[in-house]
Amino acid sequence: MVRYADIGLVGLGVMGRNLALNFRDKGFSVAGFDIDSSKVKALNTDAMERRFEGYGSVEDFVSALKTPCAILMLVPAGKPVDMAIKDFLPHLNPGDLIIDAGNSHFSDTDRRIEYVSEKGIHFMGVGVSGGEKGARYGPSIMPGGNKEAYEQVRPLFEAAAAQVNGDPCVAYLGSGSAGHYVKMVHNGIEYGIMQLIGETYDIMKRGLQFDAERLHQVYEEWNQGELESYLVQITSGIFLQRDKKTSLPLIDRILDEAKQKGTGKWASQDSMDLGIPLSTMDTAVVMRHLSALRHDRQQGASIFGECGSFEDKSEVQVEDLRNALYACTIMTYAQGMALLSAASKHYQYDVPLSDVARIWRGGCIIRAAVLEKIRSAFEKRPDLSNLMFDESLGKKINECQGSLRKLVRSATAVGIPIPAFAASLSYFDSFRSSWLPANLIQAQRDYFGSHTYERIDEPGAFHTEWGQPER
Amino acid sequence: MVRYADIGLVGLGVMGRNLALNFRDKGFSVAGFDIDSSKVKALNTDAMERRFEGYGSVEDFVSALKTPCAILMLVPAGKPVDMAIKDFLPHLNPGDLIIDAGNSHFSDTDRRIEYVSEKGIHFMGVGVSGGEKGARYGPSIMPGGNKEAYEQVRPLFEAAAAQVNGDPCVAYLGSGSAGHYVKMVHNGIEYGIMQLIGETYDIMKRGLQFDAERLHQVYEEWNQGELESYLVQITSGIFLQRDKKTSLPLIDRILDEAKQKGTGKWASQDSMDLGIPLSTMDTAVVMRHLSALRHDRQQGASIFGECGSFEDKSEVQVEDLRNALYACTIMTYAQGMALLSAASKHYQYDVPLSDVARIWRGGCIIRAAVLEKIRSAFEKRPDLSNLMFDESLGKKINECQGSLRKLVRSATAVGIPIPAFAASLSYFDSFRSSWLPANLIQAQRDYFGSHTYERIDEPGAFHTEWGQPER
Repeated sequence: MVRYADIGLVGLGVMGRNLALNFRDKGFSVAGFDIDSSKVKALNTDAMERRFEGYGSVEDFVSALKTPCAILMLVPAGKPVDMAIKDFLPHLNPGDLIIDAGNSHFSDTDRRIEYVSEKGIHFMGVGVSGGEKGARYGPSIMPGGNKEAYEQVRPLFEAAAAQVNGDPCVAYLGSGSAGHYVKMVHNGIEYGIMQLIGETYDIMKRGLQFDAERLHQVYEEWNQGELESYLVQITSGIFLQRDKKTSLPLIDRILDEAKQKGTGKWASQDSMDLGIPLSTMDTAVVMRHLSALRHDRQQGASIFGECGSFEDKSEVQVEDLRNALYACTIMTYAQGMALLSAASKHYQYDVPLSDVARIWRGGCIIRAAVLEKIRSAFEKRPDLSNLMFDESLGKKINECQGSLRKLVRSATAVGIPIPAFAASLSYFDSFRSSWLPANLIQAQRDYFGSHTYERIDEPGAFHTEWGQPER
Repeated sequence: MVRYADIGLVGLGVMGRNLALNFRDKGFSVAGFDIDSSKVKALNTDAMERRFEGYGSVEDFVSALKTPCAILMLVPAGKPVDMAIKDFLPHLNPGDLIIDAGNSHFSDTDRRIEYVSEKGIHFMGVGVSGGEKGARYGPSIMPGGNKEAYEQVRPLFEAAAAQVNGDPCVAYLGSGSAGHYVKMVHNGIEYGIMQLIGETYDIMKRGLQFDAERLHQVYEEWNQGELESYLVQITSGIFLQRDKKTSLPLIDRILDEAKQKGTGKWASQDSMDLGIPLSTMDTAVVMRHLSALRHDRQQGASIFGECGSFEDKSEVQVEDLRNALYACTIMTYAQGMALLSAASKHYQYDVPLSDVARIWRGGCIIRAAVLEKIRSAFEKRPDLSNLMFDESLGKKINECQGSLRKLVRSATAVGIPIPAFAASLSYFDSFRSSWLPANLIQAQRDYFGSHTYERIDEPGAFHTEWGQPER
């Protein structure tokens, strides 16, 4: 049998199949594998030449791959990944490469790297963002792992990735599980921005009583300016969509309970271990959970009453909402980047932050015009401790903070919940507080648990026998 | 050798030693063990009779224990616990009991229960709160694990625990790691309330420019009313404490970087797996981390400027702060209890929520007058899905919400960060929103990832080919 395939795709669901077609369109030979024979058959109907074929047998599949072979898996995270590794490992040779392009938890990826490396096999964790269309026509690809192994697949990734001004949205992001970590942070940022957009929608719907047509116009307009981004763009499109049955705006027929797969919460959970505040991102995770407690919310509404709307409709201007969303979007990226920076040190990834911003500019869900500014900020100052401290982005936040305060105050008055906006503003106000009341927390901990405290005037750990005043 | 000891204490640091003395004072015979001979010696100096003795040898120690024997470990969480188990296990017999009274992660406790049960040994995870003084004179004790094994130590625990109106602050809290889970939630609530108190301090210090003397008076006064609690009480005491060196208020010499041991963050991390919103508690964890980024904060202050103070000092009244603190304290307990309720189902603990509130009324760090109301709420309605929906507590929150809104609005205007107050208010406003903008999140997820959405008018999962308007 001729070893013809440049890459083997395992898992021919929508994402795997689309990525296979993407590689094929870029001139690469692809072999596909799935345990579901109908998916294998479906792939084969797309074969235009012998260089593109699906298999139902592990042996036949592996025999079709050029050596050292590269197998890219797009199977559900968790046990299926371990099972697939188990199936393929006996058929591989030292120097071969397994790529997990699913949404695996980064700690699983580290474990798998160690496991397969005992057999001389390389393993890469690669984040892929862009949904079905991204996989088909150009996703953002976030690879991490062995650098030499990456060189083997680099031409395929660079060809298949989204392009921004001829620059492919892929870069080597560091060792170990760096790729999956970056994807996890991407998803956390995605949660944050989606929640912020949701809150602007709420204020315009319940506060200003805009209808779907007006909402479409607002987001459409925002997408023409600094807020230009995929998420704002599809939000604009969503309000245009009509329900087939009723011809009324579809958005109003959709249930207000958010779902999730969990990768966003992983970022919040790990940030707490690394000590990095993710105020906006955490809030977004919490609000997905809270939205799902609909029966509780109905009970709460019947006890406490619903929020009001703005009596003076000019109190909050659409322009204020735009400014607030822009400032808080920057802060959400700032939180994600700060987490990446800490993780890069803690897990010894050595993540190039400006490259991360660069490859997020196209293909992925959080692609946005502001990412060019973020890329540039980290290119200028790779050690920037917080994105808010970049001159240009800081200036933007400063210009927008008045609108953000106005929005928080107005929504607070009428009772429209703005958890992510409020959390973002607290994040900002805390980061410009050279003093915070955490001295009291140190005192309390020493009082009840003798945990000691630090002083402002000399180094060391101190303990006081509290409650025995010196005076 | 005579087996005289009712209980064996392992780890004779401050907590272990104090708990040993507590058991002794209540008439029990105690054997102590520590690898540090000076700690063994120190215990023996406290021996008033033969019934109280320290040992440096595992064999001698175990031989002193009545059978079936009960060994209570107070060693640092993590590896030391596993090492101690390994040391003692060979000397134990089926039916013997090991108690881990440290701050172990509940998942470690489940693992250890399984491990020692293979040898017929019982294992209990027990939360102990109250600091050094609590251990010595009466802590709150939160035991979980095998119910029969608990009966063995119940007389000791009931005698040693804090008493509220003759009622001991201990109760069997459920199977498996229930005890450590309850302690973890206790600590999360503790973080939340400490952060809220810290924010009232900040508003009074930076917003109203109160000095330490005035701050002492405010907390002293609050502690006389509905807010009566250990944390408010020690806060009042802290502002009275003078620095030995300067005779100035000590609080002003303490560094504003909060420390933590991590048990509070565990509650936030697990809540995200269980889907329970902990808005206030999460914020408290985040703010400890943020406070530690002092160099970033100084940079932020130099770029964006510090917050202002209230121009009109009557804008926020002390009474508003009190009301807001009271309402948000209730919400913090509500979050913790909601997490416990979900964990009780998920991990099959069967936690009696009213007992939890009851044993928190004395001895522990979060003891507070309001816990009697909370106990009563769960006694009346054990299935209460959220504490805010209790008639009496809900009424309190409703009465206080005006003050809370005023506080958030005023602090927002001058830029004093009030993350926990804002998060609590958002929690409240979200729970009285029968509709939230999460329908947009469902639409976005279906748009970019074909994740499907639910409808308000019929069951099932739906997908739309977005961007192809029907109109």
